[in-house]
Amino acid sequence: MAERIYRVADVTRGLPPQATKTVLYENERTNGVIWYVPPGEEVPAHYHPDTDDIWIVLQGQGEYYLGEGRTCPLEAGMVAVAAKGEVHGVRATGAEPLVFAAISAPMPVQMIKV
Amino acid sequence: MAERIYRVADVTRGLPPQATKTVLYENERTNGVIWYVPPGEEVPAHYHPDTDDIWIVLQGQGEYYLGEGRTCPLEAGMVAVAAKGEVHGVRATGAEPLVFAAISAPMPVQMIKV
Repeated sequence: MAERIYRVADVTRGLPPQATKTVLYENERTNGVIWYVPPGEEVPAHYHPDTDDIWIVLQGQGEYYLGEGRTCPLEAGMVAVAAKGEVHGVRATGAEPLVFAAISAPMPVQMIKV
Repeated sequence: MAERIYRVADVTRGLPPQATKTVLYENERTNGVIWYVPPGEEVPAHYHPDTDDIWIVLQGQGEYYLGEGRTCPLEAGMVAVAAKGEVHGVRATGAEPLVFAAISAPMPVQMIKV
């Protein structure tokens, strides 16, 4: 059986001071990753033409990119949904790293920077 | 544009003392819900024949059902992956409600109790 349970603090321990994506799992339908974004770092704005990307924020604060220069606050305890084609990205604005799970479907994920 | 940002504390405020699922969004590919499970309550064991169901725990503690009577601890800051066909469920074991986001794909979701 594939691993099913992940502790996010184990995944982010000792990561370098850059925005870092760690893939938890991937199958033919979905994948799950953990993003670790130190203060001031970012996940640049992008979109996926065919794939939804749902972010669940576990720690920290950020400025979420909605596209066309629009942003909104994002912080622990929030969920951000980017349906296929919707621009998303984030800059970590708090004093601690921004950490979120990102669940994407369907596979494969094509990524277009904006 | 559909709503994209959700604050989970707003979703769970004032819910009754039973396990309660609130749908954040649903489209043709994925959906996202918030489960609120008060102490001692449960999401009964089940599986989805065609759909992955990924849980990201935001608050509380639980006993995650893996199928065939097996369980493992689940708590805030953990991710639990149930690929299609894999049994999952949870009982809230802590003093505060267990709260988690559940992202599912692909749609539609068929549910089989076990």
